[in-house]
Amino acid sequence: MVEARINESRCWGWLMQLAELTDPERPWTRRAFSDRHAEGRQWLAARMREVGLTTSIDAAGNLIGRLPGSEPLPRTVMVGSHSDTVAGGGRFDGIAGVIAGLEIAATLKEGATRLRHPLEVVDFLAEEPNEFGLSCIGSRGMAGALDESMLARTNPAGVSLREGLVAVGAGTAPHDAAIRHDIAGFFELHIEQGPVLEQEQRDVGIVTHIVGIRRLAVIFEGQASHAGTTPLGLRRDALVASARFVMDLRQSLEDIRDRQPFVIATVGEIHIAPNAPNVIPGQAKLTVDLRSDNAAALGAWTDRVRALAGAAAAAANVRLSECRVLSASEPAACAPDLAIQLRAAAEELGLKQRDIVSGAGHDAAFLARVAPSAMLFVPSRGGLSHSAEEWTEPAELGKGVATLFRAVRRFDSECDRARD
Amino acid sequence: MVEARINESRCWGWLMQLAELTDPERPWTRRAFSDRHAEGRQWLAARMREVGLTTSIDAAGNLIGRLPGSEPLPRTVMVGSHSDTVAGGGRFDGIAGVIAGLEIAATLKEGATRLRHPLEVVDFLAEEPNEFGLSCIGSRGMAGALDESMLARTNPAGVSLREGLVAVGAGTAPHDAAIRHDIAGFFELHIEQGPVLEQEQRDVGIVTHIVGIRRLAVIFEGQASHAGTTPLGLRRDALVASARFVMDLRQSLEDIRDRQPFVIATVGEIHIAPNAPNVIPGQAKLTVDLRSDNAAALGAWTDRVRALAGAAAAAANVRLSECRVLSASEPAACAPDLAIQLRAAAEELGLKQRDIVSGAGHDAAFLARVAPSAMLFVPSRGGLSHSAEEWTEPAELGKGVATLFRAVRRFDSECDRARD
Repeated sequence: MVEARINESRCWGWLMQLAELTDPERPWTRRAFSDRHAEGRQWLAARMREVGLTTSIDAAGNLIGRLPGSEPLPRTVMVGSHSDTVAGGGRFDGIAGVIAGLEIAATLKEGATRLRHPLEVVDFLAEEPNEFGLSCIGSRGMAGALDESMLARTNPAGVSLREGLVAVGAGTAPHDAAIRHDIAGFFELHIEQGPVLEQEQRDVGIVTHIVGIRRLAVIFEGQASHAGTTPLGLRRDALVASARFVMDLRQSLEDIRDRQPFVIATVGEIHIAPNAPNVIPGQAKLTVDLRSDNAAALGAWTDRVRALAGAAAAAANVRLSECRVLSASEPAACAPDLAIQLRAAAEELGLKQRDIVSGAGHDAAFLARVAPSAMLFVPSRGGLSHSAEEWTEPAELGKGVATLFRAVRRFDSECDRARD
Repeated sequence: MVEARINESRCWGWLMQLAELTDPERPWTRRAFSDRHAEGRQWLAARMREVGLTTSIDAAGNLIGRLPGSEPLPRTVMVGSHSDTVAGGGRFDGIAGVIAGLEIAATLKEGATRLRHPLEVVDFLAEEPNEFGLSCIGSRGMAGALDESMLARTNPAGVSLREGLVAVGAGTAPHDAAIRHDIAGFFELHIEQGPVLEQEQRDVGIVTHIVGIRRLAVIFEGQASHAGTTPLGLRRDALVASARFVMDLRQSLEDIRDRQPFVIATVGEIHIAPNAPNVIPGQAKLTVDLRSDNAAALGAWTDRVRALAGAAAAAANVRLSECRVLSASEPAACAPDLAIQLRAAAEELGLKQRDIVSGAGHDAAFLARVAPSAMLFVPSRGGLSHSAEEWTEPAELGKGVATLFRAVRRFDSECDRARD
């Protein structure tokens, strides 16, 4: 194996150049389907071609740069992530993984070498929530998880997702032309978006699982009444029910802290009515975000949320009028064969590493449906993400890209060898 | 004493006629300073004149109908309440007490008799929250509790309260011309706005105290972060702090339930940020409504709220960034001499009565600063108030008005007698 080395400052420079292509009034913003996003992709495609990749956009709107392999192998090694952002997001979420793929291609070109397999660097379309109300559009498409009802969704301007795909250059081929069964392995580098690596002073995190997510709507119906004239015993206070539910859910999580499988739950949203200082709350609507790396645990905790909400309602003399699953995605396991290569690469580079569960959803979770997939995390300062404060040091990113490059080369070297 | 009797059906008819003067799109609404309110007052003034009262509007915007007494006594007996409503309020809150005064005057006229004292029937201006952000404007004015800074307040259209008073006919005399030191006794009939009389099947409630109210703003500052990637031990969840606070406050109230003095507290308002399903709440703003009939208890419970909020913040690893008194009114005691007359009147009429604390604020609380004041409650169906569902049966209202009339006559008969 040629001892080619990634160029940390080139890689960092590209990252910052792409990040600067932001809506000027709200850095750092490059929403999918926006002109700014198209501008970012033009920049990306130009860089891809400079480093020797042939660019195209597939039927699910993914921008792909491809380098043929040195051997006539039918399967591809894919590296990438996404270039869209949330509104007012950061400079790393998504593009770090795309630029890492670009840097790998550049390093190969510099060394006048290739992988044995074809290499594809991919920028998935619309990983973040967007105007069509559907995230991970490109990776869904590649995994065969983009159905007709999704394509029929419209944005607030009345444009369908199907039309939106055409507008970003996906062409008019059937969208399932994007489905891939020829990927030997998919690697995604991403910022952690959490504080664990920083807190434990680890260089890289090897993702073992990506959580599945259940969103539940919980509604407590009590009785709005006068804050001064309603005796304690006659109150049907929906906020008191909510408070008990939030506390009991938190206690249930404390009870299983640090145990397997990984489970976390958050009440991030609450709306009470009438929400007036002198009126006892008559209604409370909460959203519960429940995550686990284990499908059975997700089911069991959905039941537990329902039971806790029911008990809190009974204790506060209100009615649990709704406890409904709004959306559900399943947990995805990263491929052990690929994780082994990431661990070995980090080890060879003398880096501090740990296995980690991704509490956030990623394109890799969809790719895992059609290909062995792996993820590598680099530290996020303060765990901040989806924020203008998002930050990873250049040296931290460099260690991640170096690990990724080494793992890709190890994998490429070992995979699809003819057995004797 | 002439055995004149109030006319229940006339009284009910007037109540419904005035109630019908509502904004048609949102019954029952007659906001202070609105054209509808002026229309209601024109109707009221016409009825006052029909029953022999001379009408005027004082310097604080109160509509007053006056009947001279049969003796040359310098002090006045006053009866009334307010004709304004909240938006989407009911048909009883306020006008029941004004119509009761009108019915007393009508009954006296019918019997061709008068009180010994002058009788004044009053419709206080703007008891409910209104566009100037100040309630009980008229009764404040009569009690000398309307200061220059209040008069300088402006509504959203930029009109000052001083100008607003002129617009309702208060004239341009100094507002302290409304202050009265000649009231021998003030009587206010009002619906309970709570469920106690109905639950205990009592006909009338004799109010002993009107609560003082403290409004406190409580703000918890945590850290907004990713719902999936932030471990339990690193969360600074402002909603978890809020939940603990709401539960602990409720438990503190349960611990003193049915004890003296009366204390009640409600968290009626909560706003969290960013209030998104997948983000740990970074900030929560709550409003606490604290009421007691005892000034010392209000102070002690203000301290307790602060302590509970501080403890909840510490337990959730967030900061209590604010715990501030937004507004404060002091408890008012009803005059025992007047309450005795109400109890005796109810007794003579064979009614079921109980003493009761008013958990709501009333004009009588301001009048109590300048005159012996008393309140009489009639039942509210389901305890509902500030609602289109507000209801009191005609017979229940009739019993209340009869009690009030009898008590007023007893008081008038005994008060300001020359001692031998």
